[in-house]
Amino acid sequence: MEEKKQLVECVPNFSEGRDRDIMEKIVEPFRAKEGVKLLDYQSDKDHNRMVVTVVGQPAPLKQAVVAAVGKAVELIDLRKHEGQHPRMGAVDVVPFIPIKNMQMAETIDLSREVAAEISASYDLPVFLYEESASAPHRKNLAAVRKGQFEGMQEKISQTEWRPDFGPVRLHPSAGAVAVGARMPLVAFNVNLDTSNLHIADSIARKVRHLTGGLRFCKAIGVELKDRGIVQVSMNMTDFTRTALYRSMELIRIEARRYGVNVVGSEIIGLVPMAALIDSAVYYLGVEDFSMEQVLESRLME
Amino acid sequence: MEEKKQLVECVPNFSEGRDRDIMEKIVEPFRAKEGVKLLDYQSDKDHNRMVVTVVGQPAPLKQAVVAAVGKAVELIDLRKHEGQHPRMGAVDVVPFIPIKNMQMAETIDLSREVAAEISASYDLPVFLYEESASAPHRKNLAAVRKGQFEGMQEKISQTEWRPDFGPVRLHPSAGAVAVGARMPLVAFNVNLDTSNLHIADSIARKVRHLTGGLRFCKAIGVELKDRGIVQVSMNMTDFTRTALYRSMELIRIEARRYGVNVVGSEIIGLVPMAALIDSAVYYLGVEDFSMEQVLESRLME
Repeated sequence: MEEKKQLVECVPNFSEGRDRDIMEKIVEPFRAKEGVKLLDYQSDKDHNRMVVTVVGQPAPLKQAVVAAVGKAVELIDLRKHEGQHPRMGAVDVVPFIPIKNMQMAETIDLSREVAAEISASYDLPVFLYEESASAPHRKNLAAVRKGQFEGMQEKISQTEWRPDFGPVRLHPSAGAVAVGARMPLVAFNVNLDTSNLHIADSIARKVRHLTGGLRFCKAIGVELKDRGIVQVSMNMTDFTRTALYRSMELIRIEARRYGVNVVGSEIIGLVPMAALIDSAVYYLGVEDFSMEQVLESRLME
Repeated sequence: MEEKKQLVECVPNFSEGRDRDIMEKIVEPFRAKEGVKLLDYQSDKDHNRMVVTVVGQPAPLKQAVVAAVGKAVELIDLRKHEGQHPRMGAVDVVPFIPIKNMQMAETIDLSREVAAEISASYDLPVFLYEESASAPHRKNLAAVRKGQFEGMQEKISQTEWRPDFGPVRLHPSAGAVAVGARMPLVAFNVNLDTSNLHIADSIARKVRHLTGGLRFCKAIGVELKDRGIVQVSMNMTDFTRTALYRSMELIRIEARRYGVNVVGSEIIGLVPMAALIDSAVYYLGVEDFSMEQVLESRLME
């Protein structure tokens, strides 16, 4: 019996978005490595930050991530860093996302292994966050990062913010790192035929988890000024449990109250095929469908 | 610039569905071959036939198909073959289907190369069919195969049925082969909340190409006796041009005339992810969506 190939995604964020040479050196470990595929890397000068998207089998991906973190620690000095995006480290955050034949528990284990290895190799304090968090107050990345690089030395000396791995002091030039496991995020925005932002905001409050809506949905109202319309802009944080079609149909229902219609939607960036196939199966009413029937699913085994 | 990996599917049908040993020898060339993946093989004793589903890069897939055809010619004797399914050869039909980074024109070329090679290597008469057909009357497999093994010797002596490759006489034990390129087939059935087969038949006639419906849709009415309902059973012969959601919505509209509702659907066997994602994008109204946004599409590059 052939063992099924496991695939995991990693989307590390590095605090360098201006120096092309440094960015290339950081992504280098993801290139031409057996079992690892560099899908994308995008940088933003204003944020002074680079986001890398890479997929691979757990063991080689782990090696490549550890190597890239080493490069970033060597080449980025947070004491000289400025940018609009909040950050606490040269390597700011390292999320791992299960893609195929990979349980969340295994993804958490992988994130802990990487946290242990980079803290030991590079003398870095590491926080576990999201599904890997060691306490509820450490789940949310914004809470972990609050205070940023400049305030972090004082923060980690408090018992409740003691790092999960590594020394109880900031790395002088590279700060601290958050490492964790999470589900794939889908950025899904639904457009409405009104220019009234209050309506989009009001609907966002009804569909999002925070204020009484769907469990794995974050949402805000956004104005699309050039089109003269508004949208409910969502982050679907676990499409396997809160499906895209469900948030769409709920928005449609809530919009009726205002005599407003859904006129379209957007998906920003990458999306796992299952998130869309799930909605197709709902709308087409397909009975007893299995993802094993999808040709590409079989090809990736 | 890395060249994009091409993928093509082949679904050869062999006239042996009873002898396990012979079937294993025929599929053997598809196993453990670099660049080729055996997805499935199913046999039917009554039909006395085996259908193999295999995907791979054009060059190694071609080699494997030629080898499997050789095995079948060696091991199957059509003079002793009986089964319910019409057949004209030990290898009855060899369709090639473009899957990724593969144009139909390239798939036709591949089918012609395979036809040339198996006719030369095994002294087989070969007909090109479907997209590869050398004349309109040879496009339809049923027309090519009509007369079957027993009537084929007389048929190929007629000018209009002269084989495209190989000798103008039947192979004594292996008969003749049809080779061609076609789009992926999706078997899509839509269930109705009535037990009246006439209604399913009538709707089938309205949605299928043959009698005035959608260009790439074949359809018949079918009774699901155990559930007390009927269905419109379809073969979608090119989902890139006749989408699944379009046939579904057309059936819904036609069913209204009878006060009948669509209550569900079925997809039988394998389906390319694009066929379903296309319907998700329609129902969710996603603007400017690109298949390049699908994670699995990027992984397969």
